[in-house]
Amino acid sequence: MQRACTLLMVLMLALPGAATASGRDDLTQISTIDALMSGVYDGDTTIGSLKDKGDFGLGTFNNLDGEMVLLDGRFYRVTASGSVEEPGPDTGTPFAAVTFFDADRTIPLDKGIDFRQFTAKTDRLLPTPNIFYAVKITGTFETVKARSVARQTSPYRPLEEVVKSQALFDFANVEGTIVGFRCPPFVKGVNVPGYHLHFLTADRKAGGHVLDFRVLKATLEIDYTNTFILVLPSDESFYAADLSPDRDKALKAVEK
Amino acid sequence: MQRACTLLMVLMLALPGAATASGRDDLTQISTIDALMSGVYDGDTTIGSLKDKGDFGLGTFNNLDGEMVLLDGRFYRVTASGSVEEPGPDTGTPFAAVTFFDADRTIPLDKGIDFRQFTAKTDRLLPTPNIFYAVKITGTFETVKARSVARQTSPYRPLEEVVKSQALFDFANVEGTIVGFRCPPFVKGVNVPGYHLHFLTADRKAGGHVLDFRVLKATLEIDYTNTFILVLPSDESFYAADLSPDRDKALKAVEK
Repeated sequence: MQRACTLLMVLMLALPGAATASGRDDLTQISTIDALMSGVYDGDTTIGSLKDKGDFGLGTFNNLDGEMVLLDGRFYRVTASGSVEEPGPDTGTPFAAVTFFDADRTIPLDKGIDFRQFTAKTDRLLPTPNIFYAVKITGTFETVKARSVARQTSPYRPLEEVVKSQALFDFANVEGTIVGFRCPPFVKGVNVPGYHLHFLTADRKAGGHVLDFRVLKATLEIDYTNTFILVLPSDESFYAADLSPDRDKALKAVEK
Repeated sequence: MQRACTLLMVLMLALPGAATASGRDDLTQISTIDALMSGVYDGDTTIGSLKDKGDFGLGTFNNLDGEMVLLDGRFYRVTASGSVEEPGPDTGTPFAAVTFFDADRTIPLDKGIDFRQFTAKTDRLLPTPNIFYAVKITGTFETVKARSVARQTSPYRPLEEVVKSQALFDFANVEGTIVGFRCPPFVKGVNVPGYHLHFLTADRKAGGHVLDFRVLKATLEIDYTNTFILVLPSDESFYAADLSPDRDKALKAVEK
């Protein structure tokens, strides 16, 4: 029986028909950034179903209802009012990127480093710009400038329009964690090339999409990720989206 | 014991640390088309390791040694001399895209349809341009124009240079199978947006990368694919490749 069991397990691992399971070094992404840019704000994926794809990540929720932070296996929603909630497992997401965070490298960050300097410094440390990295910065920040977006109602406007009325949050001398990814240049249209970061305060009461920050005392951890799993929605709004235009300029406007 | 075995299996399926297993509707790709374009012709993936990722697909082999066709679970190499071999499981690949082929839709193709007309006709039939499709055309072709590339030696020249001396094969009244994919526009830089097709004759003795064809009597089968798994090499040549330039024009020159 034990032998049969072992055999069965070996078979299962090799079984072509098995559903996609994520390894700890896989980055799993729901939908594409250009679909989100174009106004596809509802998805058929629940955050509960993402629990076995990662414990760390970012994204947004259906109706573009706030900024998502996934940290230590818990999903947080930073609303446009600045408050933070923990949405239930049935909450939908139109865009999310998640992985299991295991630091491959840990680097102290100097006092005074801002987003631009962090980008340049980290890029110099990486073995290649051609794979994915999960990045986590934990510590105290002199400043963090973050934003969130308000829940939208259909018919949806493009993200570039929505962020014109984004809520801005300025934090000073704040403890917390910056959660995000560095993506290679060839993800253009799929995710954000370069750094995409969200923030959550240590007391889990505030945060948002990071526009800028300045470190007081913090530690950077980097998780190298060679496998990227793109899960495309099968709902009508994604299927109908026009994903052929180059939205690079609009994305830059939205990100900063 | 049976119960323990079942429990173990359930745990394994849910286990976050398990290696990425492919579902039948996943398209698994090794490396990126732009890495191949730039001359990354060696990879650390063996074709044997792709057997549990798919039974259908295309790509090339280390040293850019011929065109790969994966059909019914068997890998074929169409060499530049026009001959076809079945390379062993330890053979490496720098670029491949594979899936398990299960037709979601079957469509007869009219006599006289060429590559351009096939593209237009099929695009009209698809539910969306925004997901991946595996496409298989089986039958008799009035003509197939195909090519292969010769084994290269390092230091490698870019693909655009190599294909200037590609071997061309013109088939007439030939039975065989066209194997390939239709990729969405947002894969630019990662794979070929639109149709990328390879050919293998029914007697498995010839084939190549499809440049054009004209149907005599054939059947198109389409496999809808919503999940795309991109596996990035961890070898030095991929890490060192400059993947930031837009190689769109060079790719079009290489594909046609």
